[in-house]
Amino acid sequence: MQVSEAEWTDTEKTIARTAFDQAYKREIEALLKRVQDEASALIKLDDLWRLHDFLSAKRHQIEGKYDYQYSALPFVFAGLVKEGWLQLNELEGLSQDKLAKINSLARM
Amino acid sequence: MQVSEAEWTDTEKTIARTAFDQAYKREIEALLKRVQDEASALIKLDDLWRLHDFLSAKRHQIEGKYDYQYSALPFVFAGLVKEGWLQLNELEGLSQDKLAKINSLARM
Repeated sequence: MQVSEAEWTDTEKTIARTAFDQAYKREIEALLKRVQDEASALIKLDDLWRLHDFLSAKRHQIEGKYDYQYSALPFVFAGLVKEGWLQLNELEGLSQDKLAKINSLARM
Repeated sequence: MQVSEAEWTDTEKTIARTAFDQAYKREIEALLKRVQDEASALIKLDDLWRLHDFLSAKRHQIEGKYDYQYSALPFVFAGLVKEGWLQLNELEGLSQDKLAKINSLARM
């Protein structure tokens, strides 16, 4: 399943980088917006600690998820498609086997 | 330095509870306000993780600080006075030796 860097053409690398950055931007913008909304509705300390727990989980998740290594990219893209931060058609231009792998992983 | 429960009169207990709750209310309100202000100014992910670090530290600090045990109260009150969440005159009615201890601890 792993795809080494040698198996990515320059065009594919450009498509991958653009898609990766786009998904990251979307997820981070949505996260900042959500935190702002939740913070503006804070009423008591329990609400604040719930927000803190949420941030702890998100930080762990995001720091682990956006791993730009070619061998990991199919898994990363599959996860991003599954979560809705990326559409499969934004990866058009990657080889058919890569797209098939990503698509199949995203459906698991 | 420790003051057991037996050394607190009922009047002192009432004064202590009121002061304790008042300081807690002030600190929590200020914290919620600060988090709302910082959240509304979030621009990038680093800002969010900085807010997360701040909340981790505050949670640890607050959970340790508001310890309502009579033996710990002089230390708790001294800390609250030092940090500005409580004024020494809000503890008026406590015995002179307790006030002197709190005052002395708050100046350390």
